[in-house]
Amino acid sequence: MEKAVIVLSGGLDSTTCMGIAKEKGYELFPMTFHYGQRHDREVEQAKKVGEAFGVSEHRFVDIQFLNQIGNSALTDRSIEVPTDGKGSDIPVTYVPARNMIFLSLAAAYAEVIGAKAIYIGVSAVDFSGYPDCRPEFIDSMTATINLATKQGVTGGNISIEAPLIHLTKKETIEEGLRLAVPYHLTTSCYNGLEKACGECESCQLRIKGFKEAGAIDPIDYAIKIEW
Amino acid sequence: MEKAVIVLSGGLDSTTCMGIAKEKGYELFPMTFHYGQRHDREVEQAKKVGEAFGVSEHRFVDIQFLNQIGNSALTDRSIEVPTDGKGSDIPVTYVPARNMIFLSLAAAYAEVIGAKAIYIGVSAVDFSGYPDCRPEFIDSMTATINLATKQGVTGGNISIEAPLIHLTKKETIEEGLRLAVPYHLTTSCYNGLEKACGECESCQLRIKGFKEAGAIDPIDYAIKIEW
Repeated sequence: MEKAVIVLSGGLDSTTCMGIAKEKGYELFPMTFHYGQRHDREVEQAKKVGEAFGVSEHRFVDIQFLNQIGNSALTDRSIEVPTDGKGSDIPVTYVPARNMIFLSLAAAYAEVIGAKAIYIGVSAVDFSGYPDCRPEFIDSMTATINLATKQGVTGGNISIEAPLIHLTKKETIEEGLRLAVPYHLTTSCYNGLEKACGECESCQLRIKGFKEAGAIDPIDYAIKIEW
Repeated sequence: MEKAVIVLSGGLDSTTCMGIAKEKGYELFPMTFHYGQRHDREVEQAKKVGEAFGVSEHRFVDIQFLNQIGNSALTDRSIEVPTDGKGSDIPVTYVPARNMIFLSLAAAYAEVIGAKAIYIGVSAVDFSGYPDCRPEFIDSMTATINLATKQGVTGGNISIEAPLIHLTKKETIEEGLRLAVPYHLTTSCYNGLEKACGECESCQLRIKGFKEAGAIDPIDYAIKIEW
């Protein structure tokens, strides 16, 4: 049974990736990155998703330092903050090239356990503005990983699988429903509360996706949603 | 004045890179990765090297989790440890694709501060067995970084500078001596003690380099070295 590392946030997309990798016949090795208290709930849900899939090993990696790098533009006097108006859109947890960092760490883990694939739930459709969600980034990163690792050098290539890259949220949800992934355990809300707020950008995108897929989101919302 | 991020370990190679980047006219932004108690002395020395160069900002990034991933091959029953005899050569702190991880993090930092270059002191000569010390890895990583970051996308390419990649230890030391880098502050010994042991593989490589360069290493050794 071949192994796959799954970058698992506990959200809807990465949980769908778990289902897709499982259908492909991989033994699943989820890897969850923890970067700040705001993400406690995501990590908790990721743990439950891993359990629901019956994984034998689930790595939780504390990468608080990403906040440190990300925040520096907003707090350090030596760093120029963009003044073209775009600066205010950058969240305090923003880190450039986050997927490159996630995939580098996942590649190290993949090499250690001898995994053949790394799954990541990026979408070039919903986040077209993010450079590291584009197919050309994924292709280049795959080449780099295979040059950086012994596995790549000795011929046993590691592939990056981004099965949602061309899917809308609706299509992702349809795929997840077909695979019966545990969406009731996932979280998407920015607020990180017990019940999703239903109002933040992330909740709205999720609700819209379920509606377009003709389905009802199984999670609890703090406000009444008309399905 | 253009900025450069320097991956600075406090060792001989990365300190030489500081001197090279300074000669090129860059404002230096060293970034030191800390991954375990064994490296406390290295980090301490890296701090002194940064001060000797009068840097305005020096980032110290705790990446203890690398040990967690790296050790897993040696401690987890679910992971196969190579049995071809090579396994015993892997140090407990070994992490596959370490340079890819370092460069991913350095790229994130470079984007935040608007740096144009990332310096890393890898050598394909001394460590020819490490996949991520080869020029083809550096080239591929450069392409990936420029696809992953906004800076790359908007045309302001980030370059990876690996000026030691084709140099022997002797040639690196000659370059460092020419640039008068503070070699007295650097550390190479695996043991991490106040005085270098003079006997470990790393000490031996360093001593040999200084001898071949016709120079005397300014650091203290626990044993008498014939120069």
